Amino acid sequence: MSPNPPTDATRTPHASALFADLYALTMMRAYRDAGMRGEATFSLFSRKLPDKRNFFLAAGLDDVLTALEDLHFTSAEIDYLAGLGKFDDGFLQELAGLRFTGNVRAVAEGTPVFPNEPFIEVTAPIIEAQWVEALVLNQIQLQTILASKAARMVLAADGRRVVDFGSRRAHGCEAALKGARAFSLAGISATSNLAAGRRYGIETIGTMAHSFIQAFAQEREAFAAFLRSYPETVLLVDTYDTPRGVARAIACARETGRETRLAGIRLDSGDLDSLARESRRLLDKAGMHDTQIFASGGLDEEEISALLEAGAPIDAFGVGTAMSVSEDAPALDIAYKLVAYEGRGVMKLSSGKQTLPGPKQVFRRFADGVAQGDRITQADECADGLPLLAEVMCDGKRVAPPEPLDTIRRHASQSIATLPAPVRAIARADPPYPVTISRQLRAFSAETERILRADSD
Amino acid sequence: MSPNPPTDATRTPHASALFADLYALTMMRAYRDAGMRGEATFSLFSRKLPDKRNFFLAAGLDDVLTALEDLHFTSAEIDYLAGLGKFDDGFLQELAGLRFTGNVRAVAEGTPVFPNEPFIEVTAPIIEAQWVEALVLNQIQLQTILASKAARMVLAADGRRVVDFGSRRAHGCEAALKGARAFSLAGISATSNLAAGRRYGIETIGTMAHSFIQAFAQEREAFAAFLRSYPETVLLVDTYDTPRGVARAIACARETGRETRLAGIRLDSGDLDSLARESRRLLDKAGMHDTQIFASGGLDEEEISALLEAGAPIDAFGVGTAMSVSEDAPALDIAYKLVAYEGRGVMKLSSGKQTLPGPKQVFRRFADGVAQGDRITQADECADGLPLLAEVMCDGKRVAPPEPLDTIRRHASQSIATLPAPVRAIARADPPYPVTISRQLRAFSAETERILRADSD
Repeated sequence: MSPNPPTDATRTPHASALFADLYALTMMRAYRDAGMRGEATFSLFSRKLPDKRNFFLAAGLDDVLTALEDLHFTSAEIDYLAGLGKFDDGFLQELAGLRFTGNVRAVAEGTPVFPNEPFIEVTAPIIEAQWVEALVLNQIQLQTILASKAARMVLAADGRRVVDFGSRRAHGCEAALKGARAFSLAGISATSNLAAGRRYGIETIGTMAHSFIQAFAQEREAFAAFLRSYPETVLLVDTYDTPRGVARAIACARETGRETRLAGIRLDSGDLDSLARESRRLLDKAGMHDTQIFASGGLDEEEISALLEAGAPIDAFGVGTAMSVSEDAPALDIAYKLVAYEGRGVMKLSSGKQTLPGPKQVFRRFADGVAQGDRITQADECADGLPLLAEVMCDGKRVAPPEPLDTIRRHASQSIATLPAPVRAIARADPPYPVTISRQLRAFSAETERILRADSD
Repeated sequence: MSPNPPTDATRTPHASALFADLYALTMMRAYRDAGMRGEATFSLFSRKLPDKRNFFLAAGLDDVLTALEDLHFTSAEIDYLAGLGKFDDGFLQELAGLRFTGNVRAVAEGTPVFPNEPFIEVTAPIIEAQWVEALVLNQIQLQTILASKAARMVLAADGRRVVDFGSRRAHGCEAALKGARAFSLAGISATSNLAAGRRYGIETIGTMAHSFIQAFAQEREAFAAFLRSYPETVLLVDTYDTPRGVARAIACARETGRETRLAGIRLDSGDLDSLARESRRLLDKAGMHDTQIFASGGLDEEEISALLEAGAPIDAFGVGTAMSVSEDAPALDIAYKLVAYEGRGVMKLSSGKQTLPGPKQVFRRFADGVAQGDRITQADECADGLPLLAEVMCDGKRVAPPEPLDTIRRHASQSIATLPAPVRAIARADPPYPVTISRQLRAFSAETERILRADSD
């Protein structure tokens, strides 16, 4: 990866101060009207894992911090808000000068996270903490859901390379680019998307589409033309008939010249297991033992896993839609909940949506290098194990420069490797990874609930 | 909606010339090397509907045209490409001067579309037509998948207002903003997101979150504070106990002052049907007959439909995740396929992925204002009915200024209204809407296949 991605390509132009729900601003004005300027803590967590998942892989923090450091309303945005007729001049003036001056504690990107464990906790004057809700949720979800899916692809491929082919199916260009980052972080080897490659210094991969074969009157002409331009390349062999395509690719590579080497063939349709075996046989018969077989075409982690279990001789996988939209679980059940105001614990009692009050910490215990379980505690508790949340922003400024993507990727790989084998599997782990709540936090939660129920009578 | 959304907010900064797959550029160079500069037509269509859907609602064209009109590589992007070591100086120079000079035919945004019907056809020198593949697919899918989902929400709500609350769950800020546009186009009444409201002139809605209630020691204090700031507003009543919350909202509205009017209450959890009935009873008993009941909380079109069929007294719905990521079908099975090169028909014969060759037209026939079926024909055929594809870009320039969002919304509403009732239902239509292929196109397809199979022997 390139050490210095271009700065002009890393801006997040949609992450404006106005990327907020109207209710955030109506609440902010009501807080101002009521003289409520106390400090609030909001906690971002997920209540449950999607059906097939065993862990989340935290991602997206860097974009959040970048946005928060620079967040401010432009005068055109203030004019727009004035036009809504809901905000008085004094409040609009306050908005014009508003900056995020709070603190952020967070789990490092690339860390596996489990239900009810905070990804991020934001502590700031309540007006500021409320302001950033939609932006923080949006950006953390985007990369977390995609990194979590990609981690499964990487685990399924069991050491073989997996390449991101899905930018065309992502929900917009931003999702494609940030997705490529999330995928890389989770262990995906390369991307097809050039803008993502440039922006994040990720290796790019790509050779030809069916349209190239079809633009020529005959498949062999297309292969020959491509090999003349790229003497060492991967040819797509399934446009008309896969075994014939393989035979033609072999013949063309031989005819085209001395320096020509068929680096690989790509299968994009049909029964990939049997076609890979047949292709391998033809290539081996031609002495092309190191020509690789690349498989793509609607693959997900379950299919990759099944192909490899069946012994299909596939060397690398290209994945698209399933990963790019996290097809089986395109959204996280995440929430950004007020857990404390002016030092007082806060919780929700709505049916099915109870939350744990107060700022928190998560401790992960290990034995022989394997994670044994997590404990959610109050933020100031001491407990055994590695604390997962650390301060990343203080008074609106990052406490350290952004981590290079390679560093995050290494952290992710090492952290996932410490998970128990059933949690690293593609199938749902039963029982799930153990997460407990500390006695002190349980007591605080019960006491907070008692006070709230009493007040609400 | 505001007639003039701000121009600085409508840019699409991620839609760069480099938002392309590496294989597009390797193919482009190979075409240059082979002297292939002929005209190609690519057709964008979907092979099948997601399981529960009866139609697509075409959207996203405007962003595609905006991007194509301005598409060019910056010198920094050319430097990046040079660094990949795959492209010679002559080719890089050609890229530096590359613009999209082709023609685009398309279905109008807001038109219902069915499998195998082209949304867009791009005709351009093959190098240009290949260049824009990923960008066109990405942008058309984003808004089409979201508009198609939103149309179901609107149909399920049967005349009641549906509001977009989901920007926090969209895949990034771009997806949230363009999503809000797609939702509006499909008939959604308003959005919670201010940036979307400003960018597209969409009405914004929002009052309070649970955090506002929780920031106060007691629910009644929170209600009273909010009513002082907003004498006519919607109060969220389910933070602790819904029926008590409703009673408190009524009492607070009465106590707070003369001009205070409880415009509505919002239910966000629990059994919405029974809570809505209980709330309605309490409100009516208090004489607050025109206080509206707003329901939200994980709703999708099936739940909305079930609530209304059960007779739940709900006046408006807020929807989030299910719509914002098109949760049941987060991706379209769309393809951008070469269908003609230098006037020669082109098709794919891969198993399960056969395509129809040549540029096409779609005719929709009506009887008594109801669509009877579509016929896919060759582009130059005449047939009964309304032709759906029209030229929208000629020589790289739009043939007409962008349609205002209100106009597209009206077109969508009228077009959906012409669909047969089973196709407008939430359940899968059986049989599906009829789409046939003209005799002439079938003959051309058979002839093209014959030639390709002969050549491939």
